[in-house]
Amino acid sequence: MPILIPIDDPDDPRIAAYRDVRERDLVGRDGHFIAEGAVVVRSLVMASGHRARSLLLADKRVTALEPLLAKLPADTPVYAAGQAVLDRIVGFPLHRGILALGERAPQPSAADLLAAMPARARVVMLFGIGNHDNLGGIYRNAAAFGADGVILDSGCCDPLYRKAIRVSVGATLLVPTARLTAGEDPLALLDALGFEGVALSPSGAETLARMVPPPRAALLFGSEGPGLPPALLARARSVRIPMAGDFDSLNVATTSGIVLHHCAADQDAPR
Amino acid sequence: MPILIPIDDPDDPRIAAYRDVRERDLVGRDGHFIAEGAVVVRSLVMASGHRARSLLLADKRVTALEPLLAKLPADTPVYAAGQAVLDRIVGFPLHRGILALGERAPQPSAADLLAAMPARARVVMLFGIGNHDNLGGIYRNAAAFGADGVILDSGCCDPLYRKAIRVSVGATLLVPTARLTAGEDPLALLDALGFEGVALSPSGAETLARMVPPPRAALLFGSEGPGLPPALLARARSVRIPMAGDFDSLNVATTSGIVLHHCAADQDAPR
Repeated sequence: MPILIPIDDPDDPRIAAYRDVRERDLVGRDGHFIAEGAVVVRSLVMASGHRARSLLLADKRVTALEPLLAKLPADTPVYAAGQAVLDRIVGFPLHRGILALGERAPQPSAADLLAAMPARARVVMLFGIGNHDNLGGIYRNAAAFGADGVILDSGCCDPLYRKAIRVSVGATLLVPTARLTAGEDPLALLDALGFEGVALSPSGAETLARMVPPPRAALLFGSEGPGLPPALLARARSVRIPMAGDFDSLNVATTSGIVLHHCAADQDAPR
Repeated sequence: MPILIPIDDPDDPRIAAYRDVRERDLVGRDGHFIAEGAVVVRSLVMASGHRARSLLLADKRVTALEPLLAKLPADTPVYAAGQAVLDRIVGFPLHRGILALGERAPQPSAADLLAAMPARARVVMLFGIGNHDNLGGIYRNAAAFGADGVILDSGCCDPLYRKAIRVSVGATLLVPTARLTAGEDPLALLDALGFEGVALSPSGAETLARMVPPPRAALLFGSEGPGLPPALLARARSVRIPMAGDFDSLNVATTSGIVLHHCAADQDAPR
Protein backbone atom coordinates (compact mmCIF):
# COMPACT_ATOMS: atom_id res chain seq x y z
CA MET A 1 0.00 0.00 0.00
CA PRO A 2 1.35 3.43 -0.95
CA ILE A 3 2.39 5.83 1.78
CA LEU A 4 0.15 8.87 2.23
CA ILE A 5 1.76 12.25 1.56
CA PRO A 6 0.04 15.02 3.55
CA ILE A 7 -0.63 18.28 1.70
CA ASP A 8 -1.29 21.43 3.75
CA ASP A 9 -0.56 24.13 1.20
CA PRO A 10 -2.79 24.47 -1.89
CA ASP A 11 0.24 25.87 -3.73
CA ASP A 12 2.42 22.82 -3.00
CA PRO A 13 4.18 22.10 -6.32
CA ARG A 14 3.71 18.34 -5.92
CA ILE A 15 -0.05 18.65 -6.57
CA ALA A 16 0.24 21.24 -9.35
CA ALA A 17 -1.45 18.87 -11.83
CA TYR A 18 -4.66 18.98 -9.74
CA ARG A 19 -4.89 22.76 -9.57
CA ASP A 20 -7.91 24.55 -11.10
CA VAL A 21 -9.35 21.37 -12.57
CA ARG A 22 -12.09 23.00 -14.66
CA GLU A 23 -9.77 25.52 -16.30
CA ARG A 24 -7.27 22.76 -17.10
CA ASP A 25 -10.08 20.60 -18.54
CA LEU A 26 -10.47 23.25 -21.23
CA VAL A 27 -6.77 23.65 -21.97
CA GLY A 28 -5.97 19.93 -22.02
CA ARG A 29 -3.30 17.97 -20.15
CA ASP A 30 -0.83 16.69 -22.72
CA GLY A 31 -1.08 12.92 -22.39
CA HIS A 32 -2.79 13.00 -19.00
CA PHE A 33 -6.35 13.13 -17.71
CA ILE A 34 -8.26 13.48 -14.45
CA ALA A 35 -10.47 10.70 -13.06
CA GLU A 36 -12.96 11.75 -10.38
CA GLY A 37 -14.75 9.71 -7.73
CA ALA A 38 -14.09 6.30 -6.20
CA VAL A 39 -15.87 4.18 -8.83
CA VAL A 40 -14.06 5.86 -11.69
CA VAL A 41 -10.66 5.79 -9.97
CA ARG A 42 -11.22 2.06 -9.36
CA SER A 43 -11.74 1.64 -13.13
CA LEU A 44 -8.47 3.48 -13.75
CA VAL A 45 -6.64 1.18 -11.34
CA MET A 46 -8.17 -1.87 -13.07
CA ALA A 47 -7.60 -0.58 -16.63
CA SER A 48 -5.01 -2.52 -18.57
CA GLY A 49 -3.43 0.35 -20.47
CA HIS A 50 -3.92 3.61 -18.63
CA ARG A 51 -1.99 4.16 -15.44
CA ALA A 52 -2.70 6.15 -12.27
CA ARG A 53 0.24 8.51 -11.93
CA SER A 54 -0.92 9.85 -8.56
CA LEU A 55 -4.02 10.26 -6.39
CA LEU A 56 -5.31 13.22 -4.40
CA LEU A 57 -7.93 12.60 -1.76
CA ALA A 58 -9.65 14.03 1.28
CA ASP A 59 -8.18 12.99 4.65
CA LYS A 60 -11.59 11.86 5.85
CA ARG A 61 -12.00 9.41 2.94
CA VAL A 62 -8.75 7.53 3.56
CA THR A 63 -10.16 4.71 5.70
CA ALA A 64 -13.06 4.00 3.35
CA LEU A 65 -10.73 4.00 0.35
CA GLU A 66 -8.10 1.65 1.79
CA PRO A 67 -9.17 -1.40 -0.28
CA LEU A 68 -8.74 0.70 -3.43
CA LEU A 69 -5.40 2.16 -2.32
CA ALA A 70 -4.13 -1.34 -1.58
CA LYS A 71 -4.48 -2.19 -5.29
CA LEU A 72 -2.08 0.58 -6.34
CA PRO A 73 1.63 -0.04 -6.95
CA ALA A 74 3.49 0.86 -3.75
CA ASP A 75 5.36 3.72 -5.45
CA THR A 76 2.22 5.59 -6.58
CA PRO A 77 2.12 8.95 -4.78
CA VAL A 78 -1.12 9.36 -2.80
CA TYR A 79 -1.63 12.93 -1.61
CA ALA A 80 -4.07 13.57 1.23
CA ALA A 81 -5.46 16.96 2.19
CA GLY A 82 -8.17 18.40 4.42
CA GLN A 83 -11.42 19.20 2.58
CA ALA A 84 -10.81 22.96 2.64
CA VAL A 85 -7.32 22.63 1.14
CA LEU A 86 -8.66 20.13 -1.41
CA ASP A 87 -11.42 22.50 -2.51
CA ARG A 88 -8.89 25.32 -2.90
CA ILE A 89 -6.58 23.13 -4.98
CA VAL A 90 -9.23 21.96 -7.46
CA GLY A 91 -11.18 25.21 -7.48
CA PHE A 92 -14.63 23.86 -6.56
CA PRO A 93 -16.18 21.84 -3.69
CA LEU A 94 -14.93 18.33 -4.39
CA HIS A 95 -17.77 16.31 -2.83
CA ARG A 96 -16.48 13.10 -4.36
CA GLY A 97 -13.31 13.51 -2.30
CA ILE A 98 -10.95 11.68 -4.65
CA LEU A 99 -9.15 12.46 -7.89
CA ALA A 100 -6.49 10.60 -9.83
CA LEU A 101 -4.09 11.90 -12.43
CA GLY A 102 -4.08 9.33 -15.22
CA GLU A 103 -1.48 8.72 -17.88
CA ARG A 104 -2.92 7.76 -21.27
CA ALA A 105 -2.03 4.40 -22.75
CA PRO A 106 -0.81 4.52 -26.34
CA GLN A 107 -3.83 3.95 -28.64
CA PRO A 108 -3.81 1.15 -31.21
CA SER A 109 -4.71 1.92 -34.81
CA ALA A 110 -8.30 1.10 -35.76
CA ALA A 111 -6.98 -1.73 -37.98
CA ASP A 112 -4.96 -3.26 -35.14
CA LEU A 113 -7.88 -2.99 -32.74
CA LEU A 114 -10.25 -4.71 -35.20
CA ALA A 115 -7.73 -7.38 -36.16
CA ALA A 116 -7.30 -8.41 -32.51
CA MET A 117 -11.04 -9.04 -32.00
CA PRO A 118 -12.57 -12.54 -31.88
CA ALA A 119 -14.54 -14.19 -34.67
CA ARG A 120 -17.80 -13.04 -33.08
CA ALA A 121 -17.37 -9.39 -32.14
CA ARG A 122 -19.25 -6.13 -31.84
CA VAL A 123 -17.54 -2.79 -32.27
CA VAL A 124 -19.18 0.61 -31.90
CA MET A 125 -18.10 3.18 -34.49
CA LEU A 126 -18.92 6.82 -33.83
CA PHE A 127 -19.08 9.81 -36.16
CA GLY A 128 -19.15 13.39 -34.91
CA ILE A 129 -20.26 12.68 -31.34
CA GLY A 130 -19.13 15.97 -29.86
CA ASN A 131 -21.16 15.91 -26.64
CA HIS A 132 -19.43 14.44 -23.59
CA ASP A 133 -22.69 13.26 -22.02
CA ASN A 134 -23.62 11.31 -25.13
CA LEU A 135 -20.13 9.91 -25.61
CA GLY A 136 -19.96 8.83 -21.96
CA GLY A 137 -23.44 7.30 -22.17
CA ILE A 138 -22.50 5.30 -25.27
CA TYR A 139 -19.36 3.93 -23.57
CA ARG A 140 -21.41 2.99 -20.50
CA ASN A 141 -23.70 0.95 -22.76
CA ALA A 142 -20.75 -0.55 -24.65
CA ALA A 143 -19.31 -1.81 -21.35
CA ALA A 144 -22.69 -3.01 -20.04
CA PHE A 145 -23.36 -5.08 -23.16
CA GLY A 146 -19.82 -6.34 -23.63
CA ALA A 147 -18.87 -4.54 -26.85
CA ASP A 148 -15.32 -5.38 -27.90
CA GLY A 149 -14.27 -1.81 -28.63
CA VAL A 150 -15.13 1.69 -29.76
CA ILE A 151 -13.73 3.45 -32.84
CA LEU A 152 -14.04 7.23 -33.07
CA ASP A 153 -13.83 9.47 -36.10
CA SER A 154 -11.95 12.76 -35.91
CA GLY A 155 -15.20 14.63 -35.12
CA CYS A 156 -15.76 12.85 -31.81
CA CYS A 157 -14.76 14.48 -28.54
CA ASP A 158 -12.23 13.02 -26.11
CA PRO A 159 -13.46 9.98 -24.13
CA LEU A 160 -10.91 10.81 -21.43
CA TYR A 161 -12.33 14.28 -20.81
CA ARG A 162 -13.24 14.35 -17.11
CA LYS A 163 -17.01 14.59 -17.68
CA ALA A 164 -17.07 11.83 -20.31
CA ILE A 165 -15.25 9.49 -17.92
CA ARG A 166 -17.70 10.35 -15.13
CA VAL A 167 -20.85 9.91 -17.23
CA SER A 168 -19.51 6.57 -18.51
CA VAL A 169 -19.04 5.44 -14.88
CA GLY A 170 -15.42 4.69 -15.83
CA ALA A 171 -16.21 2.73 -18.99
CA THR A 172 -14.14 5.07 -21.20
CA LEU A 173 -11.09 3.82 -19.23
CA LEU A 174 -11.96 0.16 -19.78
CA VAL A 175 -13.37 -0.26 -23.30
CA PRO A 176 -10.60 -0.60 -25.94
CA THR A 177 -10.60 2.48 -28.17
CA ALA A 178 -9.05 3.59 -31.44
CA ARG A 179 -9.43 6.68 -33.60
CA LEU A 180 -9.70 6.79 -37.38
CA THR A 181 -7.00 8.81 -39.05
CA ALA A 182 -7.96 11.65 -41.39
CA GLY A 183 -8.94 10.28 -44.77
CA GLU A 184 -9.19 6.64 -43.59
CA ASP A 185 -12.23 4.98 -45.23
CA PRO A 186 -14.15 3.30 -42.40
CA LEU A 187 -16.13 0.89 -44.60
CA ALA A 188 -13.06 -0.24 -46.55
CA LEU A 189 -11.28 -0.80 -43.25
CA LEU A 190 -14.16 -2.88 -41.88
CA ASP A 191 -14.37 -4.88 -45.07
CA ALA A 192 -10.64 -5.64 -45.05
CA LEU A 193 -10.91 -6.99 -41.51
CA GLY A 194 -14.05 -9.08 -42.00
CA PHE A 195 -16.49 -6.74 -40.25
CA GLU A 196 -19.88 -5.73 -41.61
CA GLY A 197 -21.00 -2.17 -40.92
CA VAL A 198 -24.56 -1.61 -39.71
CA ALA A 199 -25.50 2.07 -39.94
CA LEU A 200 -28.23 3.35 -37.63
CA SER A 201 -30.46 5.94 -39.22
CA PRO A 202 -34.11 7.04 -39.09
CA SER A 203 -34.14 6.29 -42.83
CA GLY A 204 -32.61 2.82 -42.45
CA ALA A 205 -33.80 0.06 -44.79
CA GLU A 206 -34.31 -2.70 -42.16
CA THR A 207 -35.96 -2.47 -38.76
CA LEU A 208 -33.71 -3.24 -35.82
CA ALA A 209 -36.02 -5.82 -34.24
CA ARG A 210 -35.74 -8.06 -37.32
CA MET A 211 -32.04 -7.47 -37.92
CA VAL A 212 -29.83 -10.52 -37.47
CA PRO A 213 -26.44 -9.07 -36.58
CA PRO A 214 -23.46 -10.25 -38.62
CA PRO A 215 -20.88 -12.31 -36.68
CA ARG A 216 -18.41 -9.43 -36.72
CA ALA A 217 -20.61 -6.36 -36.47
CA ALA A 218 -19.60 -2.71 -36.55
CA LEU A 219 -22.47 -0.57 -35.26
CA LEU A 220 -22.30 2.94 -36.75
CA PHE A 221 -23.84 5.94 -34.98
CA GLY A 222 -23.82 9.62 -35.93
CA SER A 223 -24.62 12.68 -33.87
CA GLU A 224 -28.23 13.52 -33.04
CA GLY A 225 -28.68 16.41 -35.40
CA PRO A 226 -26.90 15.63 -38.67
CA GLY A 227 -26.70 11.84 -38.21
CA LEU A 228 -24.20 9.75 -40.14
CA PRO A 229 -22.34 11.26 -43.12
CA PRO A 230 -24.61 10.71 -46.17
CA ALA A 231 -21.74 9.28 -48.25
CA LEU A 232 -21.20 6.62 -45.57
CA LEU A 233 -24.92 5.90 -45.14
CA ALA A 234 -25.37 5.41 -48.87
CA ARG A 235 -22.80 2.61 -48.95
CA ALA A 236 -23.62 0.73 -45.70
CA ARG A 237 -26.31 -1.71 -44.63
CA SER A 238 -28.76 0.54 -42.77
CA VAL A 239 -31.13 -0.11 -39.91
CA ARG A 240 -33.84 2.01 -38.31
CA ILE A 241 -35.70 2.00 -35.01
CA PRO A 242 -39.38 2.62 -35.79
CA MET A 243 -40.93 5.39 -33.74
CA ALA A 244 -44.43 6.47 -32.89
CA GLY A 245 -46.29 9.19 -34.80
CA ASP A 246 -44.27 12.28 -35.50
CA PHE A 247 -42.08 12.17 -32.40
CA ASP A 248 -39.08 11.10 -34.42
CA SER A 249 -36.35 11.55 -31.90
CA LEU A 250 -34.19 9.30 -29.74
CA ASN A 251 -31.10 10.29 -27.84
CA VAL A 252 -28.02 8.76 -29.47
CA ALA A 253 -26.81 7.14 -26.23
CA THR A 254 -30.25 5.57 -25.73
CA THR A 255 -30.17 4.39 -29.34
CA SER A 256 -26.81 2.72 -28.76
CA GLY A 257 -28.24 0.95 -25.70
CA ILE A 258 -31.19 -0.38 -27.70
CA VAL A 259 -28.96 -1.62 -30.53
CA LEU A 260 -26.33 -3.17 -28.25
CA HIS A 261 -29.04 -4.92 -26.23
CA HIS A 262 -30.54 -6.32 -29.43
CA CYS A 263 -27.15 -7.63 -30.60
CA ALA A 264 -26.25 -9.08 -27.18
CA ALA A 265 -29.64 -10.81 -26.90
CA ASP A 266 -29.18 -12.27 -30.38
CA GLN A 267 -25.74 -13.60 -29.47
CA ASP A 268 -27.17 -15.26 -26.35
CA ALA A 269 -30.10 -16.80 -28.22
CA PRO A 270 -29.95 -20.52 -29.06
CA ARG A 271 -29.22 -21.27 -32.74
CA MET B 1 -51.95 35.60 -35.27
CA PRO B 2 -51.36 37.35 -31.94
CA ILE B 3 -50.16 40.94 -31.91
CA LEU B 4 -46.59 41.46 -30.73
CA ILE B 5 -46.15 43.52 -27.59
CA PRO B 6 -42.75 45.25 -27.51
CA ILE B 7 -40.87 45.19 -24.20
CA ASP B 8 -38.07 47.70 -23.66
CA ASP B 9 -37.80 47.71 -19.88
CA PRO B 10 -36.65 44.54 -18.07
CA ASP B 11 -38.75 45.67 -15.09
CA ASP B 12 -41.97 45.89 -17.12
CA PRO B 13 -44.61 44.27 -14.86
CA ARG B 14 -46.22 42.48 -17.82
CA ILE B 15 -43.25 40.11 -18.09
CA ALA B 16 -42.74 39.63 -14.34
CA ALA B 17 -43.37 35.87 -14.66
CA TYR B 18 -40.23 35.54 -16.83
CA ARG B 19 -37.90 37.35 -14.44
CA ASP B 20 -34.91 35.49 -12.94
CA VAL B 21 -35.92 32.16 -14.43
CA ARG B 22 -33.37 30.02 -12.58
CA GLU B 23 -34.22 31.40 -9.15
CA ARG B 24 -37.94 30.94 -9.84
CA ASP B 25 -37.29 27.37 -11.01
CA LEU B 26 -36.20 26.59 -7.47
CA VAL B 27 -39.10 28.35 -5.76
CA GLY B 28 -41.81 26.98 -8.04
CA ARG B 29 -44.52 28.78 -9.99
CA ASP B 30 -47.84 27.80 -8.45
CA GLY B 31 -49.65 26.06 -11.29
CA HIS B 32 -47.40 27.44 -14.02
CA PHE B 33 -44.19 26.38 -15.71
CA ILE B 34 -41.63 27.70 -18.21
CA ALA B 35 -41.09 26.07 -21.61
CA GLU B 36 -37.85 27.01 -23.40
CA GLY B 37 -36.88 26.82 -27.06
CA ALA B 38 -38.91 26.58 -30.26
CA VAL B 39 -39.35 22.79 -30.31
CA VAL B 40 -40.58 22.67 -26.73
CA VAL B 41 -42.88 25.70 -27.13
CA ARG B 42 -44.35 24.00 -30.20
CA SER B 43 -45.14 20.96 -28.02
CA LEU B 44 -46.85 23.25 -25.54
CA VAL B 45 -48.97 24.81 -28.27
CA MET B 46 -49.90 21.31 -29.55
CA ALA B 47 -50.54 19.83 -26.08
CA SER B 48 -54.16 19.03 -25.40
CA GLY B 49 -54.27 19.97 -21.72
CA HIS B 50 -51.63 22.54 -20.91
CA ARG B 51 -52.04 26.04 -22.26
CA ALA B 52 -49.56 28.75 -23.28
CA ARG B 53 -50.48 31.75 -21.18
CA SER B 54 -47.96 34.03 -22.89
CA LEU B 55 -44.72 33.98 -24.89
CA LEU B 56 -41.54 36.02 -24.59
CA LEU B 57 -39.14 36.04 -27.51
CA ALA B 58 -36.19 37.82 -29.08
CA ASP B 59 -37.07 40.41 -31.73
CA LYS B 60 -34.70 38.79 -34.20
CA ARG B 61 -36.49 35.42 -33.93
CA VAL B 62 -39.95 36.74 -34.82
CA THR B 63 -39.84 36.04 -38.56
CA ALA B 64 -38.54 32.48 -38.14
CA LEU B 65 -41.16 31.76 -35.48
CA GLU B 66 -44.17 33.09 -37.41
CA PRO B 67 -45.56 29.61 -38.31
CA LEU B 68 -45.54 28.74 -34.60
CA LEU B 69 -47.07 32.04 -33.53
CA ALA B 70 -49.83 31.56 -36.10
CA LYS B 71 -51.00 28.46 -34.20
CA LEU B 72 -51.63 30.42 -31.00
CA PRO B 73 -55.06 31.76 -30.06
CA ALA B 74 -55.22 35.40 -31.20
CA ASP B 75 -55.54 36.67 -27.63
CA THR B 76 -52.29 35.07 -26.35
CA PRO B 77 -49.89 37.85 -25.35
CA VAL B 78 -46.59 37.57 -27.24
CA TYR B 79 -43.89 39.81 -25.79
CA ALA B 80 -40.87 40.68 -27.94
CA ALA B 81 -37.64 42.20 -26.67
CA GLY B 82 -34.13 42.86 -27.90
CA GLN B 83 -31.60 40.20 -26.91
CA ALA B 84 -29.96 42.40 -24.24
CA VAL B 85 -33.28 43.17 -22.56
CA LEU B 86 -34.29 39.50 -22.82
CA ASP B 87 -31.06 38.36 -21.14
CA ARG B 88 -31.59 40.85 -18.34
CA ILE B 89 -35.17 39.67 -17.80
CA VAL B 90 -34.37 35.97 -17.53
CA GLY B 91 -31.01 36.43 -15.81
CA PHE B 92 -28.80 34.49 -18.24
CA PRO B 93 -27.97 34.59 -21.98
CA LEU B 94 -31.11 33.13 -23.58
CA HIS B 95 -29.58 31.63 -26.72
CA ARG B 96 -32.78 29.77 -27.53
CA GLY B 97 -34.52 33.12 -27.88
CA ILE B 98 -38.00 31.96 -26.88
CA LEU B 99 -39.83 31.15 -23.66
CA ALA B 100 -43.45 30.43 -22.90
CA LEU B 101 -45.30 30.63 -19.63
CA GLY B 102 -47.43 27.52 -19.44
CA GLU B 103 -50.53 26.85 -17.36
CA ARG B 104 -50.79 23.30 -16.04
CA ALA B 105 -53.75 21.17 -17.07
CA PRO B 106 -55.57 19.46 -14.21
CA GLN B 107 -54.08 15.97 -13.79
CA PRO B 108 -56.32 12.90 -13.91
CA SER B 109 -56.10 10.31 -11.14
CA ALA B 110 -53.97 7.27 -11.95
CA ALA B 111 -57.15 5.15 -12.02
CA ASP B 112 -58.88 7.47 -14.51
CA LEU B 113 -55.78 7.61 -16.71
CA LEU B 114 -55.50 3.80 -16.80
CA ALA B 115 -59.23 3.28 -17.32
CA ALA B 116 -59.20 5.49 -20.41
CA MET B 117 -56.45 3.47 -22.14
CA PRO B 118 -57.16 1.03 -24.98
CA ALA B 119 -57.23 -2.78 -24.69
CA ARG B 120 -53.62 -2.95 -25.81
CA ALA B 121 -51.68 -0.33 -23.87
CA ARG B 122 -48.32 0.39 -22.32
CA VAL B 123 -47.94 2.65 -19.34
CA VAL B 124 -44.64 3.62 -17.70
CA MET B 125 -44.74 3.68 -13.89
CA LEU B 126 -41.89 5.43 -12.08
CA PHE B 127 -40.72 5.19 -8.49
CA GLY B 128 -38.32 7.70 -6.93
CA ILE B 129 -36.95 9.17 -10.16
CA GLY B 130 -35.63 12.40 -8.65
CA ASN B 131 -33.23 13.43 -11.41
CA HIS B 132 -34.65 15.76 -14.07
CA ASP B 133 -32.30 14.45 -16.78
CA ASN B 134 -33.43 10.88 -16.20
CA LEU B 135 -37.11 11.83 -15.94
CA GLY B 136 -36.90 13.88 -19.14
CA GLY B 137 -35.05 11.05 -20.91
CA ILE B 138 -37.71 8.52 -19.90
CA TYR B 139 -40.52 10.77 -21.21
CA ARG B 140 -38.63 11.26 -24.48
CA ASN B 141 -38.53 7.47 -24.89
CA ALA B 142 -42.17 7.12 -23.86
CA ALA B 143 -43.17 9.54 -26.62
CA ALA B 144 -40.83 7.98 -29.19
CA PHE B 145 -42.26 4.50 -28.62
CA GLY B 146 -45.87 5.55 -28.25
CA ALA B 147 -46.43 4.76 -24.58
CA ASP B 148 -49.99 5.61 -23.53
CA GLY B 149 -49.02 7.41 -20.35
CA VAL B 150 -46.69 7.84 -17.39
CA ILE B 151 -47.62 7.36 -13.74
CA LEU B 152 -45.34 8.85 -11.09
CA ASP B 153 -45.04 7.98 -7.41
CA SER B 154 -44.65 10.73 -4.85
CA GLY B 155 -40.83 10.35 -4.94
CA CYS B 156 -40.54 11.44 -8.59
CA CYS B 157 -39.58 15.00 -9.47
CA ASP B 158 -41.77 17.36 -11.48
CA PRO B 159 -41.97 16.56 -15.22
CA LEU B 160 -42.83 20.21 -15.86
CA TYR B 161 -39.62 21.51 -14.30
CA ARG B 162 -37.91 23.54 -17.04
CA LYS B 163 -34.94 21.19 -17.43
CA ALA B 164 -37.10 18.04 -17.50
CA ILE B 165 -39.23 19.55 -20.28
CA ARG B 166 -36.11 20.50 -22.23
CA VAL B 167 -34.39 17.11 -21.89
CA SER B 168 -37.63 15.38 -22.92
CA VAL B 169 -37.70 17.57 -26.07
CA GLY B 170 -41.22 18.56 -25.03
CA ALA B 171 -42.51 15.03 -24.36
CA THR B 172 -43.41 15.82 -20.74
CA LEU B 173 -45.99 18.24 -22.17
CA LEU B 174 -47.49 15.64 -24.50
CA VAL B 175 -47.51 12.26 -22.72
CA PRO B 176 -50.58 11.84 -20.44
CA THR B 177 -49.44 11.82 -16.82
CA ALA B 178 -50.89 10.99 -13.41
CA ARG B 179 -49.43 10.79 -9.93
CA LEU B 180 -50.13 8.13 -7.34
CA THR B 181 -51.58 9.47 -4.11
CA ALA B 182 -49.82 8.71 -0.83
CA GLY B 183 -50.67 5.20 0.30
CA GLU B 184 -52.20 4.13 -3.04
CA ASP B 185 -51.14 0.53 -3.81
CA PRO B 186 -49.82 0.57 -7.39
CA LEU B 187 -50.16 -3.17 -8.00
CA ALA B 188 -53.72 -3.33 -6.64
CA LEU B 189 -54.58 -0.37 -8.86
CA LEU B 190 -53.10 -2.05 -11.94
CA ASP B 191 -54.89 -5.28 -11.14
CA ALA B 192 -58.24 -3.54 -10.73
CA LEU B 193 -57.87 -1.95 -14.17
CA GLY B 194 -56.66 -5.03 -16.04
CA PHE B 195 -52.99 -4.08 -16.27
CA GLU B 196 -50.11 -6.40 -15.51
CA GLY B 197 -47.07 -4.84 -13.84
CA VAL B 198 -43.62 -5.75 -15.20
CA ALA B 199 -40.89 -4.67 -12.77
CA LEU B 200 -37.43 -3.99 -14.19
CA SER B 201 -34.63 -5.06 -11.89
CA PRO B 202 -31.09 -6.48 -12.17
CA SER B 203 -32.44 -9.39 -10.11
CA GLY B 204 -35.48 -9.94 -12.36
CA ALA B 205 -36.69 -13.52 -12.93
CA GLU B 206 -37.15 -13.33 -16.74
CA THR B 207 -34.83 -11.84 -19.34
CA LEU B 208 -36.28 -8.95 -21.31
CA ALA B 209 -35.47 -10.40 -24.73
CA ARG B 210 -37.76 -13.39 -24.08
CA MET B 211 -40.48 -11.46 -22.31
CA VAL B 212 -43.82 -11.40 -24.14
CA PRO B 213 -45.45 -8.22 -22.91
CA PRO B 214 -48.99 -8.52 -21.55
CA PRO B 215 -51.66 -6.75 -23.64
CA ARG B 216 -52.06 -4.05 -21.00
CA ALA B 217 -48.56 -3.62 -19.64
CA ALA B 218 -47.35 -1.36 -16.86
CA LEU B 219 -43.55 -1.06 -17.01
CA LEU B 220 -42.13 -0.29 -13.58
CA PHE B 221 -38.78 1.49 -13.14
CA GLY B 222 -37.00 2.62 -9.96
CA SER B 223 -34.14 5.05 -9.52
CA GLU B 224 -30.60 4.02 -10.43
CA GLY B 225 -29.24 3.57 -6.95
CA PRO B 226 -31.93 1.94 -4.80
CA GLY B 227 -34.06 0.53 -7.62
CA LEU B 228 -37.71 -0.37 -7.10
CA PRO B 229 -39.12 -0.65 -3.56
CA PRO B 230 -38.41 -4.25 -2.41
CA ALA B 231 -42.01 -4.75 -1.23
CA LEU B 232 -43.22 -3.92 -4.73
CA LEU B 233 -40.57 -6.02 -6.46
CA ALA B 234 -41.45 -9.04 -4.34
CA ARG B 235 -45.07 -9.01 -5.54
CA ALA B 236 -44.60 -8.18 -9.26
CA ARG B 237 -43.53 -10.09 -12.34
CA SER B 238 -39.89 -9.13 -12.70
CA VAL B 239 -37.63 -8.79 -15.71
CA ARG B 240 -33.88 -8.20 -16.05
CA ILE B 241 -31.58 -6.99 -18.80
CA PRO B 242 -28.51 -9.27 -18.78
CA MET B 243 -25.23 -7.39 -18.70
CA ALA B 244 -21.62 -8.24 -19.45
CA GLY B 245 -19.14 -9.27 -16.77
CA ASP B 246 -19.15 -7.14 -13.68
CA PHE B 247 -20.16 -3.88 -15.33
CA ASP B 248 -23.65 -4.10 -13.91
CA SER B 249 -24.94 -0.66 -14.64
CA LEU B 250 -27.36 0.92 -17.08
CA ASN B 251 -28.77 4.40 -16.94
CA VAL B 252 -32.48 4.28 -16.07
CA ALA B 253 -33.52 6.37 -19.09
CA THR B 254 -31.54 4.06 -21.38
CA THR B 255 -33.18 1.08 -19.67
CA SER B 256 -36.62 2.54 -20.36
CA GLY B 257 -35.68 2.98 -24.02
CA ILE B 258 -34.59 -0.66 -24.32
CA VAL B 259 -37.76 -1.93 -22.63
CA LEU B 260 -40.13 0.32 -24.58
CA HIS B 261 -38.45 -0.65 -27.85
CA HIS B 262 -38.87 -4.32 -26.98
CA CYS B 263 -42.57 -3.86 -26.21
CA ALA B 264 -43.22 -1.73 -29.31
CA ALA B 265 -41.41 -4.25 -31.55
CA ASP B 266 -43.49 -7.05 -30.03
CA GLN B 267 -46.71 -5.15 -30.71
CA ASP B 268 -45.70 -4.61 -34.34
CA ALA B 269 -44.71 -8.24 -34.88
CA PRO B 270 -47.12 -10.49 -36.81
CA ARG B 271 -49.09 -12.93 -34.62
